[in-house]
Amino acid sequence: MRQDVFHVIMAGGSGTRFWPVSRAGRPKQFLALVGDQPLVRQAFDRASAMSGAEKVYIAAGTAHRQMILDALPGFDGSRFIAEPCARNTAPCVGLSALRLRRVDPHGVMVVAPADHVYANPAALQNAIENAVAEARAGDALLTLGIRPTRPETGYGYIEMEDESVAAPAGARRAKRFVEKPDGPTAKRYLASGRYLWNSGVFVWKISAILHALEAWAPEVWKHLARIDEAMGSREEEQVTREAFEAMPSISIDYAVMEKAPDVRVVPADPGWSDVGSWDAVAELQDADVAGNSIVSPGSPDADVLTLHASNNFVYNTTTRLISLIGVEDLIVVDAGDALLVCRKSDSQSVRSVVEALKARGRTDLL
Amino acid sequence: MRQDVFHVIMAGGSGTRFWPVSRAGRPKQFLALVGDQPLVRQAFDRASAMSGAEKVYIAAGTAHRQMILDALPGFDGSRFIAEPCARNTAPCVGLSALRLRRVDPHGVMVVAPADHVYANPAALQNAIENAVAEARAGDALLTLGIRPTRPETGYGYIEMEDESVAAPAGARRAKRFVEKPDGPTAKRYLASGRYLWNSGVFVWKISAILHALEAWAPEVWKHLARIDEAMGSREEEQVTREAFEAMPSISIDYAVMEKAPDVRVVPADPGWSDVGSWDAVAELQDADVAGNSIVSPGSPDADVLTLHASNNFVYNTTTRLISLIGVEDLIVVDAGDALLVCRKSDSQSVRSVVEALKARGRTDLL
Repeated sequence: MRQDVFHVIMAGGSGTRFWPVSRAGRPKQFLALVGDQPLVRQAFDRASAMSGAEKVYIAAGTAHRQMILDALPGFDGSRFIAEPCARNTAPCVGLSALRLRRVDPHGVMVVAPADHVYANPAALQNAIENAVAEARAGDALLTLGIRPTRPETGYGYIEMEDESVAAPAGARRAKRFVEKPDGPTAKRYLASGRYLWNSGVFVWKISAILHALEAWAPEVWKHLARIDEAMGSREEEQVTREAFEAMPSISIDYAVMEKAPDVRVVPADPGWSDVGSWDAVAELQDADVAGNSIVSPGSPDADVLTLHASNNFVYNTTTRLISLIGVEDLIVVDAGDALLVCRKSDSQSVRSVVEALKARGRTDLL
Repeated sequence: MRQDVFHVIMAGGSGTRFWPVSRAGRPKQFLALVGDQPLVRQAFDRASAMSGAEKVYIAAGTAHRQMILDALPGFDGSRFIAEPCARNTAPCVGLSALRLRRVDPHGVMVVAPADHVYANPAALQNAIENAVAEARAGDALLTLGIRPTRPETGYGYIEMEDESVAAPAGARRAKRFVEKPDGPTAKRYLASGRYLWNSGVFVWKISAILHALEAWAPEVWKHLARIDEAMGSREEEQVTREAFEAMPSISIDYAVMEKAPDVRVVPADPGWSDVGSWDAVAELQDADVAGNSIVSPGSPDADVLTLHASNNFVYNTTTRLISLIGVEDLIVVDAGDALLVCRKSDSQSVRSVVEALKARGRTDLL
């Protein structure tokens, strides 16, 4: 890619869906849920492969700075973008754009979540290259849309304009962003061929997204403007903290993408997953002939013994032996100090366990 | 009971059905599978309550002597009957009877397994008292027969003679001992009302069982006679070891009870279980409103969190938190270095896991 392309990896998540392995101090993006490396490292390596590590920035909470440096040997800490507190993606995108404008006011910016996976990174790169070309040609805000393969109710969707409303090759105009649909609606979306999954990957000129934030999200912009003034001064850190604390917690989708007039979507088939639950992790593994799959990060000695057991997923961070007899469709996660045994179809309920642990005061396990 | 009644608790078992908690060095009878105490201690306390601790003997392998002393604070090691090697129950009963004959040649002997439980110990004591009275009156060999409550295929049965063949009050003549039946046969047994479960509890005069061994099990008796000669001499230990090694491994049921002419059975309803599998353990626990039951021996801090989970059994020897979501009819056993997740109906297959571990050379877990 040309030298004007910058990547921002948003690594600020603090999900509870991967308890007992994910904890407050070690959220999902730091786990090797799929593949041998932490998800944030996979994201960093993908971006570095496109533009070189010196063009890759990581945005995350201050508390996670050291973990990110530890997880990414090739990452220069000067490109860490510190979010003083969690305020969802719009403030994060704005702060990142302000930082990058000082590096290259004419640059193009690719924003991607740290905790998604792609079975086909070449298709991802191709889609991003198409989006970059189109972003560079004007002031459009682009997003990658994943062609749906099932009537998923867990994702947001983007409706494309009819093809008659022209957009340059590779992209389509986005008609609207829609929240997670119910089952029948998702089936209708899938059948129509006009809906794509909202991937959370955005491409735009740095100047374009800043103008859009100013125009469509003034309640965010007014605080970003204060940060911009203080940037480079001795007050930068303090002003940034105060501005972040004062900003609303709002997503870039809601703050800008659903409102701006020239939003386009590049359809793609990169084998994307947002890795939203243990069930999703299980589906991304290679399984044995009985459908059982086993992940044992950091414990090559970990042993699993199955007997009349099928279609189970075991994630074992310990060296303990795990034996499954006569069970099917289970998720078994052993985190050493806590064990989860969960029916695959119930893996969304892991959050409720975290809530229950909070209520019991078991902060040692959160 | 009168002073002539002695109890022998057979604690020589080395089962593999309670892996991963039971191990070669800590078999089932040393586990608190049901209730707060190890099963062998419950057996000792029951016998002591009937006749006083000074009348209770424990027979087990030499290797388990210290564990028994540790488990039974009120037990005097001089009443430990050491089995030099495992030879099933006939040699053990014979050795015990020889020991007791030296204490009281006219005494009555109650033999019971160390690893069974009784929901109604008073009914057990009453049945034993009836059997003792009848044993004392002649030379009959008595056994307790449990009135069946289901067509169980996992137990041996005893068929009673028709009531027209008289036996004194409380007992019935035993017509035959039968091995574990298949399902239809077990249903027929249950419907007939003439079959009882073989409890493994025996009552007889010391002299009567020794005469019976001599008459019906000469291949056992000839070695017992050598032990009897050496008893009290300096050669006792060596002769006992050599004799045991030379003896066939044979049960007292097969060696004597199925052959002797005057065998009687006392029907009883003591809420008996042979605690033969994790499933049996699960059935003996008090469950919460969702049918889940939790045992955490030695770990009062152990915590279990269930969500949309029903009819599960958790046995946790650790202080780890165990969380169950959306699962039912599972057995989850956490032994620290190994974890078992097993469908209740498959708990007989635990033995196969032990075999597989042997094949893998995981002696650390056996």
